[in-house]
Amino acid sequence: MSDPAAGLLIPRGFRASGVKAGIKPSGGDDLAVLAASAPCAAAGTFTTNRVCAAPVKWCRGLLPAEDILAIVVNSGNANAATGEQGLANTRQTAVRAGELLGCRPEQVLVASTGVIGHQLPMPKVEAGLAAAVGVLSDQESAFEAVARSIMTTDTRPKIVSERRVIAGQDATLLGIAKGAAMIGPRMATMLAFLLTDAPVRSQDLRGILAEAVDSSFNCLSVEGHASTNDTVLLLSSTAAGEEPLSGAGLAEFAGIVKSACETLARAIADDGEGSTHFITIDVEGCRTTADARAIARCIAESALVKTAIHGADPNWGRIVSAAGYAGVDFREEDLSLWINEVPVYRQGSPASFDEQALSTSIRSRRPVDLRLVLGSGDASARFWTCDLTAEYIRLNADYTT
Amino acid sequence: MSDPAAGLLIPRGFRASGVKAGIKPSGGDDLAVLAASAPCAAAGTFTTNRVCAAPVKWCRGLLPAEDILAIVVNSGNANAATGEQGLANTRQTAVRAGELLGCRPEQVLVASTGVIGHQLPMPKVEAGLAAAVGVLSDQESAFEAVARSIMTTDTRPKIVSERRVIAGQDATLLGIAKGAAMIGPRMATMLAFLLTDAPVRSQDLRGILAEAVDSSFNCLSVEGHASTNDTVLLLSSTAAGEEPLSGAGLAEFAGIVKSACETLARAIADDGEGSTHFITIDVEGCRTTADARAIARCIAESALVKTAIHGADPNWGRIVSAAGYAGVDFREEDLSLWINEVPVYRQGSPASFDEQALSTSIRSRRPVDLRLVLGSGDASARFWTCDLTAEYIRLNADYTT
Repeated sequence: MSDPAAGLLIPRGFRASGVKAGIKPSGGDDLAVLAASAPCAAAGTFTTNRVCAAPVKWCRGLLPAEDILAIVVNSGNANAATGEQGLANTRQTAVRAGELLGCRPEQVLVASTGVIGHQLPMPKVEAGLAAAVGVLSDQESAFEAVARSIMTTDTRPKIVSERRVIAGQDATLLGIAKGAAMIGPRMATMLAFLLTDAPVRSQDLRGILAEAVDSSFNCLSVEGHASTNDTVLLLSSTAAGEEPLSGAGLAEFAGIVKSACETLARAIADDGEGSTHFITIDVEGCRTTADARAIARCIAESALVKTAIHGADPNWGRIVSAAGYAGVDFREEDLSLWINEVPVYRQGSPASFDEQALSTSIRSRRPVDLRLVLGSGDASARFWTCDLTAEYIRLNADYTT
Repeated sequence: MSDPAAGLLIPRGFRASGVKAGIKPSGGDDLAVLAASAPCAAAGTFTTNRVCAAPVKWCRGLLPAEDILAIVVNSGNANAATGEQGLANTRQTAVRAGELLGCRPEQVLVASTGVIGHQLPMPKVEAGLAAAVGVLSDQESAFEAVARSIMTTDTRPKIVSERRVIAGQDATLLGIAKGAAMIGPRMATMLAFLLTDAPVRSQDLRGILAEAVDSSFNCLSVEGHASTNDTVLLLSSTAAGEEPLSGAGLAEFAGIVKSACETLARAIADDGEGSTHFITIDVEGCRTTADARAIARCIAESALVKTAIHGADPNWGRIVSAAGYAGVDFREEDLSLWINEVPVYRQGSPASFDEQALSTSIRSRRPVDLRLVLGSGDASARFWTCDLTAEYIRLNADYTT
């Protein structure tokens, strides 16, 4: 995350606001607008869920594009599984934002997060939009308000920024995300908005975003429930230069996007609902990256692994056995496992270790590191998750009622 | 489950015992023997986990067979991820049982359940075996002792029996199972032993068992963590007749096996660790049974669905969205969902229903029924699971330490 003392770096050409529209029963800020002063190149990546939210359908139909002017985001209501009425409500959100901002509805992207299956309260959304557009600002506090407005069960806003000289020009990237549960691999109920003033063509944005998401938000799981609303958007105002980036400059920009996505993905796992541990899973020695990710995902999503870590229980058999049902072929005799750098399983046999000391090590630090090594090849993957606690149960047993 | 008042029906040709060998730290019964008076036809179905327990490897190497004389089962230790030493310990268990029973080690099947990654305490196992063989009996209480001895976190023994006249002869089937967690689809840490006196060839037993397991133990999930030790064994003493069953008689026998497996699978889901609800998931209107099972499995394994039901929260969007990430192609507009017979989602749009009444209905009954209907075809599947509670977390956060 960005260093608070250093302040947030805001890319040129963007304004923001977050307001209380009254969509969230809790009464917090729940409507955000990100607005560009000139048409932006834009790309997006979305949930692969067959049941996807109305705003996801809307954005998919528009992107990639070269003329995007705004993003409207609401929390408190996912506008998913809402049928024709839901689609009409998303469109009306874009129409109303376009009227207020002086652009076509097709220049407005929309994202939603919250409870599934309820229609958006449109009078509240429309009034909130007018209020939000009225207070748009390019100040740091306005972007921080966006980060707060899109939170659901998140305990803290997630925001990152980076400035770099690329191809002789100062380029800034700002990333804002939300997510704490319904976080499956292939994204999550996670939203992320990346704004930059670096001049990049939408087709380049698309490739860069897809690659960055693949090694960040797609390597993240809280409980493996893929959301209907996952959305990652990347907008370039091109205010930092006339000439679109290419070659080494473009590669450097891609590196910044990837790094921002990884920082935000880690922040989401670290804010997993009710979690007391942040877990990093490294799987190495696989034939392919896909194999390594499949194994990492099974470990990340095993309730038995997650509860054992919650209990500071070095019950490594659960980790090894989770690896075994990933659908990846391997030899048990080649498998080795480390927990917090302690070898617990070597070449298919239990290693002797101090259980009490390892338990204390797990208990005493929030980050826990699991490292599983196969003997099948050179490919590896890193995955992030959190532990499973009684607090997660409490939070989720009573969400809508 | 069998009616306790009616008593348990014991197939001819089998004896049983369950004793305290001292393997379980809790000090309960933990070693069971099932012994046949004459060589039995036998078949087995096992975990598909790449990391599988030593006893699974042992049984896989022997079955199907026509000359099995005993099954030895221990709880308290899975003998999984234990390397060469683990294999040697399983073999030694069979050798010692063979000495005691007067048969070859290859006539003894072995199953284990409990913690992964610890070597079996062989002196205790061997002393326990001698004690168990010494008290073998064909009385009901002896088979009940087996059901108790194989329990780990189960809160109750799981046993079922059925007698039927098949091809003019009284045939009896007795089934004993254990399982309460690490219950993934494609079996679980579940063990089940089915004994019959119906005369059936091992090759027929194999096909009948595979089919029965497919619609019972493979349609069962507690938390989706496939175990290293899953084992289902079916033995026929042929004591009910000389002539192997065929045709209609064989089909009738297959029906009894299937019914017993389903009863035991339901009993496992109903005993899911810390559960307060038993959940039946029917998925209908699919192109294939595999599609229906994939969707049912995603719903059964969603922590968000399971916690919502625990909280009596009719948050049906979680169920619909879980269906959406099963990797099955369908149209959202064709989807309808019922919870406890109440329509909550019709043809892709929210249905109006009394949320309070439905919440009360969920809260007030242990079984909860979910029915999801697609519009893709005529195939269907039924799956069983349970809710996810803080008690599950408590039980699993501190299992080995």
